[in-house]
This record gives sequence, C-alpha cells and structure tokens, in this order.
Amino acid sequence: MEQRKVILTGDRPTGNLHIGHYVGSVASRLSLQEKGDFDKFYILIADTQALTDNADNVDKVKNNVIQLAIDYLSAGIDPSKVDIVIQSQVPELAEMTMYFMNLVTVARLNRNPTVKDEMKQRGFNAGLPAGFLCYPISQASDILAFGANIVPVGEDQLPMIEQTREIVRAFHSTYNCNIFSLPQAVLPENKACQRLVGTDGNAKMSKSLGNCIFLKDEPDVVKQKIMNAYTDPNHIKITDPGKVEGNVVFAYLDAFCKNEHFAKYLPEYANLDELKAHYRRGGLGDVKIKLFLNNILQELLSPIREKRKELEKNLDQIYEMLFENSKKASEVARDTIAKMKDAMGINYYKFLSK
Amino acid sequence: MEQRKVILTGDRPTGNLHIGHYVGSVASRLSLQEKGDFDKFYILIADTQALTDNADNVDKVKNNVIQLAIDYLSAGIDPSKVDIVIQSQVPELAEMTMYFMNLVTVARLNRNPTVKDEMKQRGFNAGLPAGFLCYPISQASDILAFGANIVPVGEDQLPMIEQTREIVRAFHSTYNCNIFSLPQAVLPENKACQRLVGTDGNAKMSKSLGNCIFLKDEPDVVKQKIMNAYTDPNHIKITDPGKVEGNVVFAYLDAFCKNEHFAKYLPEYANLDELKAHYRRGGLGDVKIKLFLNNILQELLSPIREKRKELEKNLDQIYEMLFENSKKASEVARDTIAKMKDAMGINYYKFLSK
Repeated sequence: MEQRKVILTGDRPTGNLHIGHYVGSVASRLSLQEKGDFDKFYILIADTQALTDNADNVDKVKNNVIQLAIDYLSAGIDPSKVDIVIQSQVPELAEMTMYFMNLVTVARLNRNPTVKDEMKQRGFNAGLPAGFLCYPISQASDILAFGANIVPVGEDQLPMIEQTREIVRAFHSTYNCNIFSLPQAVLPENKACQRLVGTDGNAKMSKSLGNCIFLKDEPDVVKQKIMNAYTDPNHIKITDPGKVEGNVVFAYLDAFCKNEHFAKYLPEYANLDELKAHYRRGGLGDVKIKLFLNNILQELLSPIREKRKELEKNLDQIYEMLFENSKKASEVARDTIAKMKDAMGINYYKFLSK
Repeated sequence: MEQRKVILTGDRPTGNLHIGHYVGSVASRLSLQEKGDFDKFYILIADTQALTDNADNVDKVKNNVIQLAIDYLSAGIDPSKVDIVIQSQVPELAEMTMYFMNLVTVARLNRNPTVKDEMKQRGFNAGLPAGFLCYPISQASDILAFGANIVPVGEDQLPMIEQTREIVRAFHSTYNCNIFSLPQAVLPENKACQRLVGTDGNAKMSKSLGNCIFLKDEPDVVKQKIMNAYTDPNHIKITDPGKVEGNVVFAYLDAFCKNEHFAKYLPEYANLDELKAHYRRGGLGDVKIKLFLNNILQELLSPIREKRKELEKNLDQIYEMLFENSKKASEVARDTIAKMKDAMGINYYKFLSK
C-alpha cells in the first residue's frame, strides 16, 4: 500500500498575516495546493499553542482566529482542497500530548533550540509557563494526530520536527508498535524568501515594531509604508551610487518582482539585475524604485483585499466551515488515539470477554 | 444557593490495595460513604497519572485498573453511592490540563515538595519526564473537572491541594471569573492510622519490599505474614520485658483493634492498654499477640475476600460500570470545559451572529 501524503502546516493566531508571511509560507502553501500532490492538506490555526505565551492576553488570540482564516482564504487557500482547522476545537490533541509528555524529558525540552530562542525573545526565565516549555510536544501531537508526513516549515522550526520524530521513535520502541509515519520537514525552495525584513530594515517583520505591510492594508496605507521604507541612507542625491544590500525596497523586489513586471510598469529595464546595476552606479532615485515596488505589491494585494471584503460579509459561514473542518479533524484524531491506546494496551474495552 | 458537596479521591493503579491503604484511605472513604453528607462522591482510578512514571511499564498500570476497582468494591465501596471512574476514559481532563499548564511556571512545579520527594524516590534526575513534572497540574484538573471541594488526602498530598488552589486563583484572576470552588483537603482524623509500617518494620508498606498484607491475601498467607512480623528483637524469652514502640504487631493493633475484640478473642484483657502494659513488664509472648492480631485481621479481611471472589466471576460487569461512570464523568467535565472556554472567551460558537 502506498503511503498517503498528508500535509500539515499552520500559524499561531496572534495577528494578521503580512507580506513576510506571504513569501515565507502562504506562497508555498498555494503552490502545494495547486500541485495537488496530496491526499489531505491541513492548515491549523494554533490558538491553544498561542495561549502558551498569551494566557493573560487571550483577546489577541481569540480575535485573530477568524482574522487568520480570512487571511488564508483571501490569499487564495481553497477550502475545497485544504482543511483549515481550529486547534482548540480538536481536544484529542491535548489527550495525545499527555501520553507523549511521558516520553520526553524536561532536560530535552530545555535543550530545544527554538524554545530557547523564543524564551529569550519573550524574556521568560523563572516565569516560564509549563505549557510553553511543553509546546514542542503539543506540536508533535498536531502533526501525528492527522498522520501528517509532509510539514512545510522555516529553518527555525526544524528542531520541532526533530522533536516529533524522536517522539515517534520513543512511542514505537516503548510500546513495540509502528503506528506513526515519520514526518518530513519541507523547507522553502527559495531561501531568499524565507524571512522578509521589516519596512524599517529590521531583520524581523513584527506587528509590535510597526514595520509590516499586512495583506489587508488599504492601497494608500501600502503606498505610504513603501514610500517610508528604509533604503540606503548614503544615497542622498539621485546621482549618488546606491547600495542594494540591506535596502528594503530591493529585498522586497527580490521576493516579489518577476520579469513581466518590468514590461508592465518599468519597461526601461528588462529585469531586476539591470535595475540593481543602475541603482549601484547612481542616477536612479528611490522614488522610482518605490513606485515600481508599489505597483507590484498593489497588483498582488488588490485581489486579496477584494476577496477579504467579500468574506467579511459572512463571518458566520467561515466560522461554520472552521467548526465543520475541526469536527472532521477530531474524528481523525480520535482514530489516532484509539490506535495509540491499542498499542499501549489501555483500550479497556478490549478487556471485555464478550 | 447552598454549595454542592463533591468529594474526590483516588489512587494510581499500580498494585492491589493492602491493609496500609485500608487504614490510610479506604476506611475513611467508607465512613464518608456511610455518613452520606455529599451530593457526589468520585473515586478516580488514576491510570493516566500512573503512566507519568510508568510509561515503559504499562502492563502494571493496565492490569491494575480492574484490580483496584475490585479492591474498592470488595472493601465495601458501594457503587450506588460512589462513582468509580477511570481517568484515561475522561479525556477532558487532558484538555483542562493544557489550559492550566499556561498558568503554572516550571519553577513552581520544581518546587513542589511532593514531586521533589517522589523524584528522589524514583531516581529521576536528567531523565525526569515532562508528564511527571506536570502531574500536579493534571491532578488539579481531576479535582476541578468535577467541582470537587472536599478532597480526602494524606498529609504528604497537601502540596497538591495547594497547587490546585493556586491554579483556581490564577484562572479566576487571569480570566476575571469565578467558576471554580476552592477545594479543601480533608486529613484523616486518626493521625496514627495515616501510614502503616510494613510487616518487616520498614516505615513504608510497599509491594516491592514484600512487606504488605493485601486485602486479597488468602487466610493462610495473612497468618504467615503476621507470624513473621517484626516485633521486639530483644524480647527473647516470654518473661523478658518487651517494647511496644516500633513493634509491628502493636502498630497494627493500634490501627485495627477495638475493645470488643478483647471480649471475643482475648478476654483476659479489657483493652489494648492492658495488653501493652503486660507486654512491657514481661510475661507475654509474641505468639499470643500475633494470634490475637491474626483473629482481628481475618475478621476484617474475610468478608472482603468473599466479596472479591463473587466480583471476580463477572469482570465484564465491573468494566461496564466503570465505563458508564467514566462517560457520565466526561459529561460533567465537558460542562466544566465549556465554562472555562466561556470565561477565556474562546468558545467560538458564541461568535456566530445568529
């Protein structure tokens, strides 16, 4: 029997998606969706996981569940091909996590590089919540509940997949079974796109830094943000030579610009290399490249924005779709737990003589 | 509205109950059951908790679920008054635990005196499983899921109740609500009975030390264990003065002997004080006090053993009772989770406009 191909990916609902998410994950999800080479494709809205470091900020999480769903759908995720699921609506994930927690040591969790980085970012120390320490285990449940074997992730998430693989091996050897398939991480093909800098040149696009261009931003907001973007502070006069490296506009052009955009919006250049060369030798002003980028991003974002406006007219329908998907996902997870309990020998119904 | 009285207690299914359990917890449960001063009384067979340090020894756990149920029933727990529930059959407990884990720090768990003691006993160090570290949180879920406010425990379990009370306060203050009642620990009235020494004089009765008298032991086994029990090594001749302190037979008599036993089995003495006085001044042999203890324990254990033999004829019926109770307990826990999600604001069904 050939192995089923199950893709699982997702996000914590802590804010709207921005163009950094678009190049970092949404675009590759759209491309996987179009290829169609899967039996099942899940996108998980990880509200339970978001609560592990937002327990006292639940409003942020709960209001962004629907926002994230709208972002996905408006960006082109097709609900007839992809199941968008709310994590907290699949309580079986918590049950799996409890059993997996017995197979992972505290020392191992403390060594997880991703968790270590995030702990530093969040300034947890003595105040580290148990739920946050254990979230790699709960992430393993997300993956294994649905039999996902293809997990598109950024490089920073690789330790999570490794933790999941360790749990699979531990479960199989402890309970002498072979019920899970080992998940594979799939890294984005275009490494340049993995992380987009903020409009201020900061390495990370982050809501709290106010340096994001959101998928939902109105045209004038997008334009304003681009016109204010960080370029080369030494490129003062148009005739000055300019630096492309560390220049936000070129970073975004690297991510979004295709040759056809030149024909359409800037026919003096054949491609991005020519544009960069001109900028480097001087004589090309920031306004020109910013307006070019603006055209490209408006072209990308305009249909997304229109779709969003349609979707926002009927939130109930989206919620109901999410509930329905989550219910079906629960059933799949319930099957997985039954297999786990069988393997562990704690399916007591099997102890009945009749 | 008067507060409902809900009692919750339980054991890890890792072995049959012995007379130490009888005086330590079973007797007080029977007395609570007879008083009848409660709206609901749960006894939890904590198999999920037992797995936190028995993940690789699941057979011990799974086979003792039914053994523990039989021990309870044969000792006199009345299933028409008390709901015996299997923890793993109430998956809602895991879901509650996930939310509570965000409200408890790792540092707090590491400070839990009971967990620290148990970690030492089990020789965990670097190998401490995450599930074991977090089991006080899962125990809080057990208590809070069913609205238990009366929790009979030994003194060593007091930190668990305190952890539960902390979780209640944290949940209420974080989510600005008041949905849980603060559980109260109820300590045994007779402090002497809290922990029974082993037949070898070891402070702890433990299966692995082979120093237990089990409720299910056959009469000749009970007698044999009593005849071999540790008394006073310096009490060699009958005429020697004997020590009562540290003497296992007197420790057991302290726990089980009532004045009417003298009239029945040893009419030369009116009560235990007279017997002790004679032993102390010399002239009373070990065989005599051991046979007296044997009479008392046989009287206690005989009906328990008979009942067990009846019960063992129909294990299916016991399992079905456990499943039925667990199902009802699940429904109660589901209500609790609905209340929690309402308080947290993540009951997304409430977001529907219609």
